[in-house]
Amino acid sequence: MKIRVGIAGVTGYTGSELLRILVNHPDVEITCITSETYQGKNISAVHHQFRGLIDQQCRPLDPELLVKETDLVFTALPHGRSCAVVPYLLEKGKKVIDLSADFRLKDPGLYERWYGWEHPAPELLKKAVYGIPELNRQTIGSADLVANPGCYPTSVILALAPLLRQNIIDSGTIIIDSKSGVSGAGRVPKQDYHFPECTENFKAYKVVGHQHTPEIEQELGIIAGEPLVISFTPHLVPMKRGILSTIYVKPKEVIEEKNLAELYTEAYRGEVFIRILEPPALPETRFVCGSNFCDLSFRVDKRSNNVILISAIDNLVKGASGQAVQNMNVLFQWPEHRGLKTPAFCP
Amino acid sequence: MKIRVGIAGVTGYTGSELLRILVNHPDVEITCITSETYQGKNISAVHHQFRGLIDQQCRPLDPELLVKETDLVFTALPHGRSCAVVPYLLEKGKKVIDLSADFRLKDPGLYERWYGWEHPAPELLKKAVYGIPELNRQTIGSADLVANPGCYPTSVILALAPLLRQNIIDSGTIIIDSKSGVSGAGRVPKQDYHFPECTENFKAYKVVGHQHTPEIEQELGIIAGEPLVISFTPHLVPMKRGILSTIYVKPKEVIEEKNLAELYTEAYRGEVFIRILEPPALPETRFVCGSNFCDLSFRVDKRSNNVILISAIDNLVKGASGQAVQNMNVLFQWPEHRGLKTPAFCP
Amino acid sequence: MKIRVGIAGVTGYTGSELLRILVNHPDVEITCITSETYQGKNISAVHHQFRGLIDQQCRPLDPELLVKETDLVFTALPHGRSCAVVPYLLEKGKKVIDLSADFRLKDPGLYERWYGWEHPAPELLKKAVYGIPELNRQTIGSADLVANPGCYPTSVILALAPLLRQNIIDSGTIIIDSKSGVSGAGRVPKQDYHFPECTENFKAYKVVGHQHTPEIEQELGIIAGEPLVISFTPHLVPMKRGILSTIYVKPKEVIEEKNLAELYTEAYRGEVFIRILEPPALPETRFVCGSNFCDLSFRVDKRSNNVILISAIDNLVKGASGQAVQNMNVLFQWPEHRGLKTPAFCP
Amino acid sequence: MKIRVGIAGVTGYTGSELLRILVNHPDVEITCITSETYQGKNISAVHHQFRGLIDQQCRPLDPELLVKETDLVFTALPHGRSCAVVPYLLEKGKKVIDLSADFRLKDPGLYERWYGWEHPAPELLKKAVYGIPELNRQTIGSADLVANPGCYPTSVILALAPLLRQNIIDSGTIIIDSKSGVSGAGRVPKQDYHFPECTENFKAYKVVGHQHTPEIEQELGIIAGEPLVISFTPHLVPMKRGILSTIYVKPKEVIEEKNLAELYTEAYRGEVFIRILEPPALPETRFVCGSNFCDLSFRVDKRSNNVILISAIDNLVKGASGQAVQNMNVLFQWPEHRGLKTPAFCP
Repeated sequence: MKIRVGIAGVTGYTGSELLRILVNHPDVEITCITSETYQGKNISAVHHQFRGLIDQQCRPLDPELLVKETDLVFTALPHGRSCAVVPYLLEKGKKVIDLSADFRLKDPGLYERWYGWEHPAPELLKKAVYGIPELNRQTIGSADLVANPGCYPTSVILALAPLLRQNIIDSGTIIIDSKSGVSGAGRVPKQDYHFPECTENFKAYKVVGHQHTPEIEQELGIIAGEPLVISFTPHLVPMKRGILSTIYVKPKEVIEEKNLAELYTEAYRGEVFIRILEPPALPETRFVCGSNFCDLSFRVDKRSNNVILISAIDNLVKGASGQAVQNMNVLFQWPEHRGLKTPAFCP
Repeated sequence: MKIRVGIAGVTGYTGSELLRILVNHPDVEITCITSETYQGKNISAVHHQFRGLIDQQCRPLDPELLVKETDLVFTALPHGRSCAVVPYLLEKGKKVIDLSADFRLKDPGLYERWYGWEHPAPELLKKAVYGIPELNRQTIGSADLVANPGCYPTSVILALAPLLRQNIIDSGTIIIDSKSGVSGAGRVPKQDYHFPECTENFKAYKVVGHQHTPEIEQELGIIAGEPLVISFTPHLVPMKRGILSTIYVKPKEVIEEKNLAELYTEAYRGEVFIRILEPPALPETRFVCGSNFCDLSFRVDKRSNNVILISAIDNLVKGASGQAVQNMNVLFQWPEHRGLKTPAFCP
Repeated sequence: MKIRVGIAGVTGYTGSELLRILVNHPDVEITCITSETYQGKNISAVHHQFRGLIDQQCRPLDPELLVKETDLVFTALPHGRSCAVVPYLLEKGKKVIDLSADFRLKDPGLYERWYGWEHPAPELLKKAVYGIPELNRQTIGSADLVANPGCYPTSVILALAPLLRQNIIDSGTIIIDSKSGVSGAGRVPKQDYHFPECTENFKAYKVVGHQHTPEIEQELGIIAGEPLVISFTPHLVPMKRGILSTIYVKPKEVIEEKNLAELYTEAYRGEVFIRILEPPALPETRFVCGSNFCDLSFRVDKRSNNVILISAIDNLVKGASGQAVQNMNVLFQWPEHRGLKTPAFCP
Repeated sequence: MKIRVGIAGVTGYTGSELLRILVNHPDVEITCITSETYQGKNISAVHHQFRGLIDQQCRPLDPELLVKETDLVFTALPHGRSCAVVPYLLEKGKKVIDLSADFRLKDPGLYERWYGWEHPAPELLKKAVYGIPELNRQTIGSADLVANPGCYPTSVILALAPLLRQNIIDSGTIIIDSKSGVSGAGRVPKQDYHFPECTENFKAYKVVGHQHTPEIEQELGIIAGEPLVISFTPHLVPMKRGILSTIYVKPKEVIEEKNLAELYTEAYRGEVFIRILEPPALPETRFVCGSNFCDLSFRVDKRSNNVILISAIDNLVKGASGQAVQNMNVLFQWPEHRGLKTPAFCP
């Protein structure tokens, strides 16, 4: 029997990407999709790629409706909006996977400081489980509320976890230089993302101030077993999708690439979606875009004594909707790759 | 029981696209992939998107090998190379779907004139069936050799067939202005497709001389029941994938858009992959790329008395490998959309 | 002594492009720039490319101010807004080159029908001279108000003028398939021009309804000496700049390419900005973008008896601001290429 | 009287960019252009953007010819090829500005180690002056042979020089994460730069092994007054032009952004081509591409105690041909911005 799934906020990019993935998932039936902006319109009239595949109306963001028609809800709403439905859904025994940033930070003070408004439901933060299955599979499996990770944090945490867990790098030296495609900025048109201003352009943005900084620090700190501070600089790449993170760390002692290879291979043994590349290969976003893979490489710079980690994901798949589906698979004890074992869309 | 499938010429764009599609087709097992250039290498070391999904070596283009290990072979070789294996495969009772241009033209003289060399196996031209399932489903079903159509011809023929069949346009006035993404030019790097010369550029090419011209004329002529001559001008768009064809024709008598709507709806009733768009929607390549759909629109320009047809396909899917898989589904009497019912990759 | 030049509406794309060109024009001094949106801000804080080159404040759209500080005003305002200043400027003896569509159509009824509102100053339409110097140099020279042509019309009219003037084509058969970069849609961000929806996409738009249709018909009709009706279909290309128009016409009698070559060479003899390409070369937008050139080619399709014309321009230069500067040069009897003799920005 | 200028290797990207700039330089006459590949062809038949502007034949790479016809030669040849002409040109008293990497490294052993072959003229290395005018204006002015800097090094050295000169950062902690457009890879088509493999893709390359590393270290070491080792990681951006470098350094003591602002303002006072941006502005490649500007920003990350420097240049202008022209202006004691004071080509 299929699980009844709802998507709240279906017309944003993570919402439509959930649809793209779930339409071929054998164990779910999409029973309720909501949109505040396009309420009453058929989803295929908003996202024309679904014509002939999905014939459903966008409905209002009504908690009762979601309770009645679904077993699980993906909330893909703007940051700050999830609390309009999440508490009620949980109260009624539904499972929720939230793709916003609202349940990722454990400390409501940090949320307020980086997002700019008071957290609307701080009591739920303790219930939420941070959903990177490769790291938290057990706790996700028994959670009611999964906080689906941010795109940058996913690309960074998967790259650093094995090193921090083994305590072999100086956790005070982590420098993260990330680059994202433009879909990461969402679907609402703005001057900076207007095609003629965005194509043939490269820039850093929110330097020393991106809201994913505390999320990365929180999760890396948990892995390291001690608080840590990172330097994180995001950049905008003139492409639709993809994140590549280049991460610079200082090893505590001299380390060889072959030791790193063993360490990463061991750390991610059996993981379907983590691919440790063999040199000379290096991650490229085109080889992951459209897929749920995270590609990882590392190099030791003996001259400067840095370890350089590189990871690539599709920001909308492993960085959002694909990982959300992976979390659903964990929640329902289905094979984790169900509905997700597709190669990148390349070329 | 699964059918054993071979792909001859797996490392070109249509070859790798076949892999991308077939990896999720429930009824086939890919048993033999060949590459003359990358023989001996693992396909995932050539097309990194398949790491973790496909672990097979590229093998030589050996007819014996293909006969032994496959029931059906997709030949995705450069034009002129198919005959190295196709005659032998047919002789041994295998089914062949050929993605090159070698078996599309019925007249070997036309082939020689437009491709520049003598046809190497003219006796096979009679056996080959032109593989647009929406038009030739019956004959494809009983064929041994399917000539998979060209990308431009697919986009043009599907748009024009309903009009020509009803004999309501002046078949001497057809003007076809097509625009293609760069993957249509293949995987071999050339000056014209070097990124800095290709991005931020738009141009026409092979004006009054593109080799798809006789293929379009042949098939349209069959539909119209009389020979016809078209004007066909291809253009290069700075994007990876997608073809949009804008077609101008003169109706024999005044015609209304609503009559056209009825005619097209009727002509393609029940077709899974043909989407007739309701105004004001118009085809856009992003809504078909990654999918096997062909989106169609038409407008009547009453001022100038032209009918304007617009079609969009993904040149590598409905224009090549997706249609090839659709043809395979017809050959084996599987549901025609098996393995192909996925939405476009959008955004 | 330098001419004092004003730019009304300096922050749109045609306004900033005027700045880019004029900053190196030896005979002008930019004395007044206006912006309703950015009033009070330094232009270099809006268009950062001018930092270190231009240090001027955007001022209100005040007719008195413009009268006081300028000899010539380029009005680069949204369609319908020019009349806020143009009548007053003319009254006060200033020269005006208007880059909007407001003074291009001679018939105010046509304007209302295609633009959707009543013309605010129909009495000025008679005074305005349509500013393609290659065709109307004499009348422009003595005009007070130059209606700078639209981007699509420039690319089309320059291509067709020699044929229509010689009366060698059937003027009822003109089919124009144009393709434009996204800057043609202006600087205001909209869903359709949001980077993730615009890159890797190609589409037609405003089919059978683009407002440049009557402008093209008016000017071609003047050249042909009789009214004519065209079929015009614009398309959007995922690039910043450039227009390529492919035009299909029926010759009245059989014509050879070499005759066309003579005809075009003769028609544009001495024209600095018109380049008739020698076969096999064909226009590409990259070879004109950033320059004021219009590249032209033609081919005779003997099989279908069509003549195919192809033209390429930069929509913001020869299609807007470059042509406006060329018109200024004509007005002030300077060499027509002054400030404009730069090659395309390529690669 | 105009200086007679030669360009050896005119058909590569730095060669054609020299032409683009010099065609409007009032003090030079281009008297000799050479190409080994296109010898005998008109440059406008190779680079069509010059049609109607330059009408010159590409000539063989003949030292005698260059000596006879020029006063100054820009050598824009592949690395390792310059020595075919440079020694002879210098012997005959000509000035040479070399755009290859052949005369940048002082240590021929380093050259051999990073470029892979023995230096063909090590005796010239002492004569060569490293040509960043903002740093070495005096020595350039009296040089015969200017080694024009690499694109990445220019973007890095200009950003770091003020800090190193003041000795306020720990010179052992410099991490450089650079991102370049594809024209930096040259004009020869290769698989990695084939449009369908390059668009919609982002990747690092030559990690821990890029040949610009020793060049950056040499010049930074000279400024710092002591040898230093950097970590340098280049990336490829799907755009034609532009380099953005993000540089991470540790200050020796706590430092404020306003102190940095003073330091940089002072360091580059009077420099036409260096723009220190006022916060919140940050460099973007689109605001420099087509121009000779280098845009600089810095931020202090107090949480992690890093200083983050960001610089943007056009890799073909300030990173190559524009800087070469600037060096020529220094050599001939012309105003340094002559022929170079143009805004970026934007949008």
